[in-house]
Amino acid sequence: MKRSLYSADHDSYRSMLRAYLTKEVQPRIAEFIEARAFPRELWIEAGKHGLLGLNVPEEYGGGGAGDYRYSAVQAEELAKITMALASCVGIHSEVVAPYLVDLTTPEQKERWLPRFCTGELLTAIGMTEPSGGSDLKALKTTAVRDGDDWMLNGAKTFITNGYSADLIVVAARTREAGENTGITLFAVESGMDGFSRGRKLDKVGQDEADTAELIFENVVVPDANRLGEVGAGFGYMMERLPQERLGAALANTAHAAQILEETIEYAKDRKAFGQPIGAFQSIKFRIAEMATQIEVTRAYLDQCVIAHDRRELTSVDAATAKWWSSHVQNEVLDDCVQIYGGYGYMNEYRAARAWRDARVTRIWAGSNEIMKEIIGRDLGL
Amino acid sequence: MKRSLYSADHDSYRSMLRAYLTKEVQPRIAEFIEARAFPRELWIEAGKHGLLGLNVPEEYGGGGAGDYRYSAVQAEELAKITMALASCVGIHSEVVAPYLVDLTTPEQKERWLPRFCTGELLTAIGMTEPSGGSDLKALKTTAVRDGDDWMLNGAKTFITNGYSADLIVVAARTREAGENTGITLFAVESGMDGFSRGRKLDKVGQDEADTAELIFENVVVPDANRLGEVGAGFGYMMERLPQERLGAALANTAHAAQILEETIEYAKDRKAFGQPIGAFQSIKFRIAEMATQIEVTRAYLDQCVIAHDRRELTSVDAATAKWWSSHVQNEVLDDCVQIYGGYGYMNEYRAARAWRDARVTRIWAGSNEIMKEIIGRDLGL
Amino acid sequence: MKRSLYSADHDSYRSMLRAYLTKEVQPRIAEFIEARAFPRELWIEAGKHGLLGLNVPEEYGGGGAGDYRYSAVQAEELAKITMALASCVGIHSEVVAPYLVDLTTPEQKERWLPRFCTGELLTAIGMTEPSGGSDLKALKTTAVRDGDDWMLNGAKTFITNGYSADLIVVAARTREAGENTGITLFAVESGMDGFSRGRKLDKVGQDEADTAELIFENVVVPDANRLGEVGAGFGYMMERLPQERLGAALANTAHAAQILEETIEYAKDRKAFGQPIGAFQSIKFRIAEMATQIEVTRAYLDQCVIAHDRRELTSVDAATAKWWSSHVQNEVLDDCVQIYGGYGYMNEYRAARAWRDARVTRIWAGSNEIMKEIIGRDLGL
Amino acid sequence: MKRSLYSADHDSYRSMLRAYLTKEVQPRIAEFIEARAFPRELWIEAGKHGLLGLNVPEEYGGGGAGDYRYSAVQAEELAKITMALASCVGIHSEVVAPYLVDLTTPEQKERWLPRFCTGELLTAIGMTEPSGGSDLKALKTTAVRDGDDWMLNGAKTFITNGYSADLIVVAARTREAGENTGITLFAVESGMDGFSRGRKLDKVGQDEADTAELIFENVVVPDANRLGEVGAGFGYMMERLPQERLGAALANTAHAAQILEETIEYAKDRKAFGQPIGAFQSIKFRIAEMATQIEVTRAYLDQCVIAHDRRELTSVDAATAKWWSSHVQNEVLDDCVQIYGGYGYMNEYRAARAWRDARVTRIWAGSNEIMKEIIGRDLGL
Repeated sequence: MKRSLYSADHDSYRSMLRAYLTKEVQPRIAEFIEARAFPRELWIEAGKHGLLGLNVPEEYGGGGAGDYRYSAVQAEELAKITMALASCVGIHSEVVAPYLVDLTTPEQKERWLPRFCTGELLTAIGMTEPSGGSDLKALKTTAVRDGDDWMLNGAKTFITNGYSADLIVVAARTREAGENTGITLFAVESGMDGFSRGRKLDKVGQDEADTAELIFENVVVPDANRLGEVGAGFGYMMERLPQERLGAALANTAHAAQILEETIEYAKDRKAFGQPIGAFQSIKFRIAEMATQIEVTRAYLDQCVIAHDRRELTSVDAATAKWWSSHVQNEVLDDCVQIYGGYGYMNEYRAARAWRDARVTRIWAGSNEIMKEIIGRDLGL
Repeated sequence: MKRSLYSADHDSYRSMLRAYLTKEVQPRIAEFIEARAFPRELWIEAGKHGLLGLNVPEEYGGGGAGDYRYSAVQAEELAKITMALASCVGIHSEVVAPYLVDLTTPEQKERWLPRFCTGELLTAIGMTEPSGGSDLKALKTTAVRDGDDWMLNGAKTFITNGYSADLIVVAARTREAGENTGITLFAVESGMDGFSRGRKLDKVGQDEADTAELIFENVVVPDANRLGEVGAGFGYMMERLPQERLGAALANTAHAAQILEETIEYAKDRKAFGQPIGAFQSIKFRIAEMATQIEVTRAYLDQCVIAHDRRELTSVDAATAKWWSSHVQNEVLDDCVQIYGGYGYMNEYRAARAWRDARVTRIWAGSNEIMKEIIGRDLGL
Repeated sequence: MKRSLYSADHDSYRSMLRAYLTKEVQPRIAEFIEARAFPRELWIEAGKHGLLGLNVPEEYGGGGAGDYRYSAVQAEELAKITMALASCVGIHSEVVAPYLVDLTTPEQKERWLPRFCTGELLTAIGMTEPSGGSDLKALKTTAVRDGDDWMLNGAKTFITNGYSADLIVVAARTREAGENTGITLFAVESGMDGFSRGRKLDKVGQDEADTAELIFENVVVPDANRLGEVGAGFGYMMERLPQERLGAALANTAHAAQILEETIEYAKDRKAFGQPIGAFQSIKFRIAEMATQIEVTRAYLDQCVIAHDRRELTSVDAATAKWWSSHVQNEVLDDCVQIYGGYGYMNEYRAARAWRDARVTRIWAGSNEIMKEIIGRDLGL
Repeated sequence: MKRSLYSADHDSYRSMLRAYLTKEVQPRIAEFIEARAFPRELWIEAGKHGLLGLNVPEEYGGGGAGDYRYSAVQAEELAKITMALASCVGIHSEVVAPYLVDLTTPEQKERWLPRFCTGELLTAIGMTEPSGGSDLKALKTTAVRDGDDWMLNGAKTFITNGYSADLIVVAARTREAGENTGITLFAVESGMDGFSRGRKLDKVGQDEADTAELIFENVVVPDANRLGEVGAGFGYMMERLPQERLGAALANTAHAAQILEETIEYAKDRKAFGQPIGAFQSIKFRIAEMATQIEVTRAYLDQCVIAHDRRELTSVDAATAKWWSSHVQNEVLDDCVQIYGGYGYMNEYRAARAWRDARVTRIWAGSNEIMKEIIGRDLGL
């Protein structure tokens, strides 16, 4: 069904973006996979195309969009290239941006936002820890007040952009004068003493996304790098998780839709037993089911985007969007692989890589089990 | 998520309707099940409440709504009472109405529509035949021109309202002067010679819906009872199937949503092993999944309703809505039964009856297999 | 695959049994459904054919089989007729029998077993209570010692054979001189003062099985009707549940296999769009899957039967057999209904009734959720 | 349930094998993955341990087992290390061996079998072609008789061991004096002019298995390298496919069982929200379901092994075993990954690699769709 969500302006932004991505980025994916990262010049280039500061105020070099539908278009178009592109750019421009825009002082804005928009200052966010998984309440990284500074100790893992990021928003349990003040957010910057990174993690998919473990050993973080109020970090994260999850959901669905579209073309072209394989009823019906799954999910996400633009998107809506879209994405891609047969097991086929790339979407950004917990609790269970 | 589809006017229509249904109709369901039909006085009452002629022009006693959202509200509220109520009323007011409104001459309108709106003229539609199932092209009922009349022979089965209907729109293969002219529609009326009905069919569910086999043996149907052009019946039906399927989809989803809501209450109240059963994670998560399935499906249907009001709903959209909603409905109800445990197997519990009532929605109005065929074909497979 | 479990003797017992059942019982099912019970003369007849006392010692009129494979054959052949037949006969001859054979005094054996074998003494077992479901530890029925008698109070529900049974094995929480002694089993007999039955329960399926609620109001049960030791009831039940669950699993699988076989024949005969519907790949593949599900399940059950004959069947094996077989049975029957199309919704078709009949197998004899709990706990989780 | 299939002799063979594999092979997997092949010295070592010639007559240096259960033990134990090990060794010792043992002349046996058993002559089999997938009837590789030789042209793809193999059994469409004589098998040997190999294929998983495309350009194959009768190749392959599929099924199931076992341990150790994650009911129940799926599948395979030793295993039995086991394997591994959370996406975790390794089992050795076709056809559909 034609989507009514987008206006002509969004459509032309999409066309522009797609032209850039398919012409400049898509042909280089093999190179990025080999490098296991997107090179800095790509980020700089993306900055020039306005991808990085979409929601940063214009005075700091951003787009000042104020309309989430542009973010939605971006998430979708990036995911059509690869999931890793959507997740790496998204972490920077959609997940970290709200922290640096909403919680910062004018001085901090000046320090960081202009280079954030150009891609000179690449960012990441550090919540998950090796021991704790999805349980934010079990956070073990600590920051202890020491005059004008904080002494940071701990570790974060599975950090997208972690290996390359210049600035990482880190959640730490804070203590001031011996008191536990809850969780506070800090901007840890590349080059701070005691901040190191483990090797790039060797993942099942998204090879071109750099993902790393971060280690903080007595890192002295100036209070000027504190983001927002002391002890308010848990609330800040909870408020921003719905947008992260909606962005993930949009990427998940566009990614699966793109591969499905390619698979349909393959099923029309590839012949077996004397006919196009798409003419076999089991394949035809399965494709009809997949097309349905995508359509239905998209309808829900479009409602979420509208709600988010009205500031009405709840954490339950976002949890629903996140778990469901990742579930659909993985089901769809698994069957796309099957339709490609032996070629579906070859990494040179996009369906093969997409299948590997997508496996993590049921795990990250709050595992699907956590999402169901959120929904169930909201129903009073 | 709050639905943005409906305005305050629709909401107040819904409130009025719900008040009537829960007060006047719901308490009598056991009686209707016993009778295996909705009695004529209920139809007359429904007519008084404006349920039957919602889309019939005002000059013939109808509501002249011209806004499908009122139909959607009606389908949803009826289904919350029972599926059979939604299907029996829907066949009359949503499925048959367009034939009698769009394809009729002024004389026919005068003859039928006023009593159609009051419930005095109860209607049904006869497409499916014992031998043919979903295959309209294999239609065997024939009508042979004989002067100003047509001689009708054949049989129809699984006809909702079939036992009580006063007028049935019947699809027959026509022959004029020996030529096969395709399919033509006729209004067969109660009392015509040679028109008889088999017994009420004994169904798995929807006991209160009268469903029957219709037999036509040399029934003389005057040409004045012909609906639309000779040979144009196939097209007429194809044009109207999307609305029928969308209505079915709305009913399916509201039905499942209602039972799920009741099941959630039950899961909060019922205790086992020392806690409410809804606190067991396997039940909590399954309920979260069901809530998601309903939300996502509803989002899609809301888009379909908007498209239908714009006359943009395609047969593929409707096929998608129909198969998917019935799939979700059946999955949801199956798990609702499981949550009720032994009580879920007892007919006095609504979940038990709902489970039986819903099984047919994957079969009727074009089986889900046919829906997938429609979607697959549209994708070029 | 040919089953190697059975010898020629079992095969000839099966042939004999099948001949009796298809000739004498199957043609009368409609009558039993109408009566909502199997009439006593059928039980007497079954007794004459040796169905009731298969595992009762010969001296009391039983078959003294001592080989569970005869019980397995019986469960399978009864289920091929209807699930209700398998469950009603099975409760008597396979579930209650071990209590009356293993736990009884010579006097009790004399009193009950001969008439048990002839069908004059029809039995049932009362564990489940309205408030407690699968939670045996929450049992509320009480029996308080009063001299040589026990005063029984409480209620049981969902009792198969409950309306007609002459003797019911009832689990009650006992108190002697104020002490809670755990659960004790009693044989409550028809006609005891204060023992009454609710109406036959109106179930989703298995209409021909009489199922009832039992009410005990100050029923005086002589100590001579106590089964086994005081306070040992929980252990007695736990020991015997695996056999009940294995019997249920065998019935589930044979039932689904039988309907699948009939559905395959239907799919070969029924034509649509110019070919047998079984030639449509989506149906052909789904049937292949169902055949696989049955084959694989049967292999597991055959191993369970062998283990049971060696007294090695664990409660985990039986829990596995029970939940899995009922899951497969329900999946298979749901698709059989779909293959029948509209006819699958008509009660005159066996597939339709089988679908309704089977829904309870995921709930009773310990819900599938309880089975998974048993398995998970055994894995140390 | 304890498996009754194996005797003490099989168990001690298993212990010996497991000791060798866990001590000598398992620690080197990372090295093999890096090399993207098992090195020749490993093959030689495996030969010394008797893994390669299990079913080759003793006079040629083999084990002369004549008891498929040893092959079954081998398939299971290899798969517990990695799927690639099971598939690479299995192709040689279980898939190719029957061709070289059954179809060869005494001279051919002398030439090939002794070195086959020592690992000096590594083998592969070439059926699948780039254009044809699972459709053996569409075979395009041709061999044209030219005096005492055959001129071979064509290509094969997805060939396990293809890059390293010294001898490949190749299926080609033969022509003698212009006549199409059907399919004939040839032993193509390394070093023959015109025989080349594409690069090692870059696969989704099983990185340590060398898989390659083979190209034949005017390769002159002496008639002394023909296997069996001219034109009899299709039958030869059909006869041997069931054993290949049964071996695959055994490996699939043992592989999933092993990873499940490790996952259960992980679920007991890993804590979240204050308890072992295996104590969360959704995980506990899912593990119970997986344990069931493995148990049930294993029961079926054990029956297949017995049937195969009796030479009664049909192509339908083997198709059932193959598709079902791969389906179960993939479902189980997908949930194992989920239980590991973020770690399940890291290649250093076995569950992560196992998930990638297993994806191909639904595709190769005849896709699962082909298996369902075989089963459906056998049912007369």
